Order: sequence, then C-alpha cells, then structure tokens
Amino acid sequence: MDITSPTLLLDKSICQENIKQMAEKARSQGLDFKPHMKTHQSNKIAKWFKDEGVKAITVSSVRMANYFAKHGWNEITIAFPCNVCQIEQINHLAKAISLTVLINNQVVAQQIDQQLSANISAYIEIDTGSNRTGIPSDNLKKIKELITVIQNTDHISWKGFYSHPGHSYSARSPQEILDVHHSVLSQFQRLKNKLTSYQPFEVCIGDTPCCSVANNFEGIDAISPGNFVFYDLMQTQIGSCSPTQVAVAMVCPIVDKYASRNELVIHGGAVHFSKESMVTNGISHYGLVADYFDDGWKPKTDQSMITKLSQEHGTISCSDHVLESYSIGDTITVLPVHSCLTANLMGEFSLGNGARITMM
Amino acid sequence: MDITSPTLLLDKSICQENIKQMAEKARSQGLDFKPHMKTHQSNKIAKWFKDEGVKAITVSSVRMANYFAKHGWNEITIAFPCNVCQIEQINHLAKAISLTVLINNQVVAQQIDQQLSANISAYIEIDTGSNRTGIPSDNLKKIKELITVIQNTDHISWKGFYSHPGHSYSARSPQEILDVHHSVLSQFQRLKNKLTSYQPFEVCIGDTPCCSVANNFEGIDAISPGNFVFYDLMQTQIGSCSPTQVAVAMVCPIVDKYASRNELVIHGGAVHFSKESMVTNGISHYGLVADYFDDGWKPKTDQSMITKLSQEHGTISCSDHVLESYSIGDTITVLPVHSCLTANLMGEFSLGNGARITMM
Repeated sequence: MDITSPTLLLDKSICQENIKQMAEKARSQGLDFKPHMKTHQSNKIAKWFKDEGVKAITVSSVRMANYFAKHGWNEITIAFPCNVCQIEQINHLAKAISLTVLINNQVVAQQIDQQLSANISAYIEIDTGSNRTGIPSDNLKKIKELITVIQNTDHISWKGFYSHPGHSYSARSPQEILDVHHSVLSQFQRLKNKLTSYQPFEVCIGDTPCCSVANNFEGIDAISPGNFVFYDLMQTQIGSCSPTQVAVAMVCPIVDKYASRNELVIHGGAVHFSKESMVTNGISHYGLVADYFDDGWKPKTDQSMITKLSQEHGTISCSDHVLESYSIGDTITVLPVHSCLTANLMGEFSLGNGARITMM
Repeated sequence: MDITSPTLLLDKSICQENIKQMAEKARSQGLDFKPHMKTHQSNKIAKWFKDEGVKAITVSSVRMANYFAKHGWNEITIAFPCNVCQIEQINHLAKAISLTVLINNQVVAQQIDQQLSANISAYIEIDTGSNRTGIPSDNLKKIKELITVIQNTDHISWKGFYSHPGHSYSARSPQEILDVHHSVLSQFQRLKNKLTSYQPFEVCIGDTPCCSVANNFEGIDAISPGNFVFYDLMQTQIGSCSPTQVAVAMVCPIVDKYASRNELVIHGGAVHFSKESMVTNGISHYGLVADYFDDGWKPKTDQSMITKLSQEHGTISCSDHVLESYSIGDTITVLPVHSCLTANLMGEFSLGNGARITMM
C-alpha cells in the first residue's frame, strides 16, 4: 500500500475478533448486546455487529443516531443526557425508530414530554462512581421520584437504568477493573432490592474495561461497550486488553530526522492523533511506535514514542536502533493512545488492501 | 440564534480587526505578509486577507495547499518539511501555482528534484530555538552545503530561510515574547552577515506571539503568523493578545447540573474542543466560561472552567453564582484553549446571524 500522508489502518480480522468475543460473552452471560458506535462511527463496521446478531445499538449524540437510523438501524439508545434543545430532531427520530434516551432529572422529563409528538423510552442514568452524570445509586428518593415522573408522562416509557462506570478508566490492572465492576454490581443489586415493586426494568452498563474483563454480570441485563471494537494503548494500560487486540494503528510518513536529539519528525499531528496523552514508564506521550506481526501490532520494546505534537508535526523520541532503521520518506507505525478520538479526527479507515471505510 | 448543539461562533468584526492590524503592521514595517491559513482553513476568511492586499499565503499541508489553489490562490508556501512521498501532488501543484516548500536536508532536495516535473521554490528551515524542525542557525556549514545542493538542482530555486519560533509559546508576558523575538533577530543577523555572498535571499518568520507583540523586524523580510486571526486563551496567557481580541467562542447546550459538586455538564466534548489543556491559577482546564460584551468575549472573573472532557460530555466546574444563573436547556459560552484545534474539529463557523462559514 502506498501511504503518502497520515493513514489510520484497520486490521479487519482483529476488529471482527474483538466484536465476536464481546458478542459471545454477552450471549453466554444472557446479556442483551447493545454496542456503542461512537468509536467507529461507521455503518460498514456496524454491519459486522449485525453479522453477530446485534439488533440494538448505542450512540452518543442525536447526530450519530440520525446517521445510523438512516442506515436502517431501528433500535437506538442515545447514551447522553437528553438535550431538550434538540427536541425537533428527537421527534423526527422517535417517529422513525424505537428510540431510548437518558433522563436524569424531572425538569427534563417534563420539558421533553410536553414537546414530544411520538413515543420514546428512557433510562435513568445512575452514577456508579464516575461522578460525570447520573443520579448516585444510593439516592433512592430522587430515583423513585424520577421514575414516577417519567411513568406519569404521556410519551415516555421508563425502561430501567443505564450506567457508564467511567471510573474503571483509572484502573491499572484486570483486578482493579474487577474491583470497580463488583462495586457496580453491588450498587445495582442494592437498588434492585429496594425497587422490587417497580419491576420489571432493565439495567444496562457500558464501559469497555468492565465488559472486557468481567465474567460475572449478575443483575445486569444489557451491555453497551464501544471502545473494545478497536481498543488502544490506554485500554492496554488499564488492563482491558493485550496489545495484539488493538485493531487500529496510524501509519505516518517520516519527513525529518534529528540524530543529535534521537528524534524522527512525522507528518502526523494533533489534527490526526488528538492531544490525548498517557504516561508510560514516567514519560508522557501521544502514541508508541509499533511493529506489525502476524497476530497484530506490538509496541517496540525500546519504547519509541511521540513526545511532541503540533498541528501537523509529530516528534518521535526514539532509541539509536529505531533512529538508524528509519529514513526520511519511510513510513512508521504508531499505536494511538485513544482510538475513539484518533478515528474521529481521521474520518476514515484504510484496510491496507486499497479499500477504505468512511465514517459518518 | 437557535443553538441546539455545540457551535463555534465567530465574531467577524474582531477577526477582521485582527487581520487588519497584522496587515498594517506588516505594511508599516515593510514586511511581506504571507498569513498562515491553518487556523481557519476557509476560503471565505482567506478573502478577508485578500481585502487587505494579501497575495501570498502559507499552509501546513499539501492538502491545504490544494484547497486554496483550487480557490484561486496562486502563491503558496507549504510550511512543513517537504514530504517526498507526496511528489505526485507537489508536481500537480507546481504546474498550477507558484509553490514554495521547506527543505531541511540534502537528501530530500535531491530526491524531490529528481522527481519534479515543474519548478518550485524552497526555503531552508532554520531552527531558532524551538527544537522541532530545521537546521540550527549556527550550523553554518550545513546551511551553506544545503544552499549549494539546492542551487545545483534543476527544478528548485533557493528562496531564503523560514523559521517558526515555536519556543515563543513558552513565554508568559509580552517581554518574554520579545526576548525570544530578539534572539531570533540576532540569529538571522549573524546568519546574514556570514552569507553576504549568497544575497539576495528572503527571511520569513511565522509565529503569532512574536508577530503580535514585536515592532522591530530588522533583517526580516516576511511574516506568516496564523493563529492571530482568532487568537485564543493560550495566546492570552502567552501575552500575544487581550481576551477581547479572541474572535471565536464555543456555545454549548447545558444538559445536566450537579449542584452538590458545583458542576454543569454541557454537550461539548473532546470531539468539539480538542483535548488541548492549559493551567490557569494552578488548575488544568479545557476552556473558560465567558460573557459577551459589546467589545467581545471576556472570561468570567470567577474562573468557571471545563475541568473534564470525554468524547461528547464537558464538565464545567463553576462558582455558586454561575451555577445559579444557568439552567438545563440554556447555552453557555466557553473560550477555547487552542482555536486552531477547536476550529479543525468543528469544521465550520457560525456568524451568529444564521450565516455559516465552512472549512475545507
């Protein structure tokens, strides 16, 4: 393949294996699988989920819901606090598909209901420790009040609870991920015990670390992870996956070389990688140089990494060995820190055989 | 204006005033003005430069050069180390317009020349202290050798020197910016004194901080700043501009509110703002909440700021006063940390009167 500018390579077989494994886990655990589409934002990749029997999907914006609805998906959850400003588009979607939104407070429930011209479902979002959005799981009073308000609306059916345990991203080992997961299970167990009169309702959780590592989903009905479709360096560090499960890598032309500083300069900047950084062995970076083997990409053992990013330039700090083995005009492969943000910037995937998959 | 999702507002009059001021400075200092287009990436805004007499422009990629060439710009510098992999597109451009590239070493000069089918010009990039790309200004031997190599090519005319003094971004006051600028001037003065036999040649420098603050450009022939067209919070902190010179602001719907943590949650995440962060009063953040006055946006004095960003969510940590004055469903205005990256993600500007300007 002739790569002349920054290119996001997708290893289709690794990606399909990631999808297959998660789908199988869901099946074996009796969970509904409602994968999040925010990482790949592509109907072509969504079809690989369909091949695994997926019927319902999760997205992070009304715009993304529109895109997938246009491509024939008719059961979509927008896993983002329902935005009353977007009622016009919500009505449009609600007429076309089976739409579920997140509602976290009474005012929103009432405002949305007054302006709805078709029926929708709603999860109440539960904050299981991430402190981003949702009602804390122990605030039973507020949860019960909100259920009642939603049940009294004309157009909104209360479906159950949704939680994104984003605090699993602070884990640094499978055991730490499981600690978060078990806390989430306990919180929902307690909640369910206190809401027996409200049954049946559904509980859906959605983070890649817990869904990747856990094998006990007692009390959970559905999962909606997203990032696992590609994984990335951050997920490797968290403990969600092995490096060989990472399905995407950036390939960038080397445009300059500074031997005295052990630096390669690539065409590949903040508008390609994003400025998401992580720390490996005490050094903050935006991606690790990798090699491709038969079973996928692996970061080089000498930890050559992007240490600086400007708009279009990336600076790779590397070992003598890497410095010597690459020339200006060569391409170099870099595993991204956060595949969601890199993919969002790149807008398309190259399959390496000339084929490309475009995003929405 | 009815804002239902994250929107990048552009204050046309501030933007045009920024353009006018820089164009006037260039005129009064006898400098060629070759503004960088990477910040706005829009032909409509490029026309505002044309209105100020600009004929030659600077871009950061071959792709961007193609876009502006298609819109009638015929004198373009690609201020990025010339990428030999893109020779096909370079040839295409070289036939259509007057193209200048950056060449930093002999191998590239020779490789490019062998494959050129039309003539181009080249600056040698000088590293005046940013340690990103270019030959250090005191490496006279390498500079002279490269000039000779370029002058001996068939298709490349040596035009002079280009430098992006990116180390000015570490400044935190106009005086610190001027210290960088004076060092750059001295370096070029020394270089010119030692290259009298190579005259005439041009020296072009391109960073927003120095070009904004300096009033002495002795020995410099051309300037190519870019970010000044909008400025941003980072430039305010560096000392390049006042907050009222910032020409863009994000307007985002508030979708959730957590009084116990003094937090507002907005639709506006890493895919809108970028993950570029800065530190204000010891707190790392992704943007400051601002108010609009007659003369432009100003950050609120209580320093309400985006302290967390996920893909679509932004969390604003705010004062009691801000918390009380905003409701779910309202919009809130946030000044971006780095306007180049925010604009690149947003892809279009709203002028506030319903009109929109799209980027390439």
